[in-house]
Amino acid sequence: MSVSPDLPIGVFDSGVGGLTVVRALMERLPNEDILYFGDTARVPYGVKSVETISHYATQITEFLLERKVKLLIVACNTMAAVASQAIHDLSPVPVLDVIQAGTQGAVNTTLNKRVGVIGTLTTINSQAYVHTIQQADADIRIHSQACPLFVPLVEEGWLDHQVTRITAIEYLQPLLQHGIDSLVLGCTHYPLLSPLLQEVVGDKVQLVDSAITMAEQVESLLDETGMANPKTTAGEHHYFVTDVPQRFQAVGGRFLGRPLSNVHVVNW
Amino acid sequence: MSVSPDLPIGVFDSGVGGLTVVRALMERLPNEDILYFGDTARVPYGVKSVETISHYATQITEFLLERKVKLLIVACNTMAAVASQAIHDLSPVPVLDVIQAGTQGAVNTTLNKRVGVIGTLTTINSQAYVHTIQQADADIRIHSQACPLFVPLVEEGWLDHQVTRITAIEYLQPLLQHGIDSLVLGCTHYPLLSPLLQEVVGDKVQLVDSAITMAEQVESLLDETGMANPKTTAGEHHYFVTDVPQRFQAVGGRFLGRPLSNVHVVNW
Repeated sequence: MSVSPDLPIGVFDSGVGGLTVVRALMERLPNEDILYFGDTARVPYGVKSVETISHYATQITEFLLERKVKLLIVACNTMAAVASQAIHDLSPVPVLDVIQAGTQGAVNTTLNKRVGVIGTLTTINSQAYVHTIQQADADIRIHSQACPLFVPLVEEGWLDHQVTRITAIEYLQPLLQHGIDSLVLGCTHYPLLSPLLQEVVGDKVQLVDSAITMAEQVESLLDETGMANPKTTAGEHHYFVTDVPQRFQAVGGRFLGRPLSNVHVVNW
Repeated sequence: MSVSPDLPIGVFDSGVGGLTVVRALMERLPNEDILYFGDTARVPYGVKSVETISHYATQITEFLLERKVKLLIVACNTMAAVASQAIHDLSPVPVLDVIQAGTQGAVNTTLNKRVGVIGTLTTINSQAYVHTIQQADADIRIHSQACPLFVPLVEEGWLDHQVTRITAIEYLQPLLQHGIDSLVLGCTHYPLLSPLLQEVVGDKVQLVDSAITMAEQVESLLDETGMANPKTTAGEHHYFVTDVPQRFQAVGGRFLGRPLSNVHVVNW
């Protein structure tokens, strides 16, 4: 397989959450073409079994590789948590994932070496962040908390709502009691809650948004390997989804920070 | 196809919600055998498109018919709302669904002919309850409200939580202002919130739980058609699911009101 710099970057997620990663990529690498895959028919993955998630992740990886991409980005923490090896095994092109990116962000950010991690049930139960962060720095102590209501609250658009604030306080209080100074947003939906979460955790805790670290890692990798797209015109962005649910345009646009176009439906 | 009284009743849902219907059936018809199908790999349906839901509903109907059932019960409001015709067209055995049951319940309950209906986004947008209730009694005025956060709140187990109470007040206030005297729980997850919802709507509004009306309708139908199971021993219950997600036993048991056994995984 010949890989050339003018190929697009493939980004995939279980639904719309990965669009926060696309947004960070667009801002940092405006000339890169992007193929996004969101498995909107089968979302959410965060409550499914490891076997089912691995099966779905393999299907999506094959779909993007067939369309020729120069790099794969796993923009779903749940897939990265439980199916990362399966995706790496399949792919002849480099694979980056949001857990590696979030880990790098946490290591760069923490001063007191007490890090909080929040995510879906499956991501937290997998202990993926605990393993990768401790591999990067064995002195860091990690305190994790599953926050299953954050995804539906974001999708309802209650980004600055009393209900979301009380829910956040309930989920985050135990982490704060451990004296964390950094909080990894271990789900691509959570950056939309950043202002509210920052308010709840206070000034002394820094939020780690893996989308931003991811865009930095992609830029470095493309530069080091000579794979940055040489064109000077704006990148093209295409979105493949397995379903166009009610309110998809509205919710997707909220994640992307601009209107969604070039949406293609894949019937699986 | 020969249908005999000793065949089981087939009940299906997008996930675990339909277990509230199974529970009502077990209590009213303890000798009947039940085959339950929950599409736990692809749940929730409530935010997916009509085409996707119809496709899934057809697959499940065929699965249960192959295993021989004497009656099909669509225990998912979303499927009943958008795929009822497709299911009826496929089935040689009678089909009952929770929207018909909820409609009957509403007609029996309302005195002032102002009825509220709550459900998922897809159920409410389909206007299925509006059509069936007005067909039953054209004088009834219906006020509908989608409540997308109720399903995740139930699955989180926050059945009597401040967050759930504030969310319910926000969703239900507009319906109360219309002077409804009955509120149809148009999603099989919602009966678990009954005590909290009753508190929020007050004594003057009656909750209509379609699971209970459904069990009454099934009993009548079986009696009228001579299809009631003649055996005097307790019915057998089998549960087919497309995935065994994290916490399935705990969440399923909460819906069923007793521990889950005889769970079989179907790999689709």
